[in-house]
Amino acid sequence: MKDERLKKQMEFALEIDKEKNIFRQTHLSGKGRRENDAEHAWHMAMMIYLLKEYANEEIDIAKAMMMALLHDVVEIDAGDTYAYDTEGLKLQKEKEAKAAERIFGLLPDDQRDEMKALFEEFEAHESPEARFVRVIDNLQPLMLNDSNRGGDWIEHKVTKSQIYKRNQKTGSGSEKLWEYIQELIQRNIDRGSIRDE
Amino acid sequence: MKDERLKKQMEFALEIDKEKNIFRQTHLSGKGRRENDAEHAWHMAMMIYLLKEYANEEIDIAKAMMMALLHDVVEIDAGDTYAYDTEGLKLQKEKEAKAAERIFGLLPDDQRDEMKALFEEFEAHESPEARFVRVIDNLQPLMLNDSNRGGDWIEHKVTKSQIYKRNQKTGSGSEKLWEYIQELIQRNIDRGSIRDE
Repeated sequence: MKDERLKKQMEFALEIDKEKNIFRQTHLSGKGRRENDAEHAWHMAMMIYLLKEYANEEIDIAKAMMMALLHDVVEIDAGDTYAYDTEGLKLQKEKEAKAAERIFGLLPDDQRDEMKALFEEFEAHESPEARFVRVIDNLQPLMLNDSNRGGDWIEHKVTKSQIYKRNQKTGSGSEKLWEYIQELIQRNIDRGSIRDE
Repeated sequence: MKDERLKKQMEFALEIDKEKNIFRQTHLSGKGRRENDAEHAWHMAMMIYLLKEYANEEIDIAKAMMMALLHDVVEIDAGDTYAYDTEGLKLQKEKEAKAAERIFGLLPDDQRDEMKALFEEFEAHESPEARFVRVIDNLQPLMLNDSNRGGDWIEHKVTKSQIYKRNQKTGSGSEKLWEYIQELIQRNIDRGSIRDE
């Protein structure tokens, strides 16, 4: 019985290895190759721990880190959709719900339920942890792209209003980091990397 | 003052992006490309959370996860040395201590001290968290390599005694996972992927 449990946990652990092959639109700093989901999640968890003092509300740090680490696992089946692809994002939700069933379903029932709940809590943006993790999910690619003088924004012709729309809830997770992000956006408008529309 | 602090934290956050370019000897499951340090650390943190019930001692889970996430940051300067390269490993310690000074030194003093202490605690193997994180640091590549029918062991002509030496402290972190690992090793000896010496 105990071994059956460990076997399931290890099957899940092996399955998520595939997340390293899901590539995002964001490029690594130094105008490197595109970043994958596992790297993005690792970077987020590090930043959550180091920037937790800026969360508006008190957060359970292990919970927030695990939420970040697993939030893109569903993209193993559903793929990545660019943050500014409005049509793609509508279909994405459905695909991700199905993926959550299959992938978290590899785990023992109690952990399946826990991981699925954590993923849904992140998506719903309805807890202090979800609100703060979302801030970092936005800040991390903004940081990389800013370090590359906005190359990804230039390539995709991204506008200020698109970024503000995506960040409409950022202030509810961290006022301080939202201030920081607004300055970063303005700097990239000033140098012509983000369209002022 | 507060802004100077955030500036330092963000400089560190950007610097560690380089960890995604440090490649290990281990290949991704499906005989894919080599894995990088950031992916390895992400995978470890996920496994630590999911397998924590097998730790011999009670562990602080956020601390253990952060320890895993940062344990290879020093390789940005020091590079990766293969687990079975005995000569290389002697020089590695010195290079890593220097790297820890520079890289964690980007952070505000309190966080520099905290991260350096966490890294040193991992290296010293002298806390419940360090012992369990070390188990997962070993288990994660064993899992990937086993899924690839031991390709990396075959390539490097790795022997049973080398793997046992590397895992001599695994039982002190988790008896249960050490049992699991011993079975995994035996399976790969039986199929000729690990040399029985």
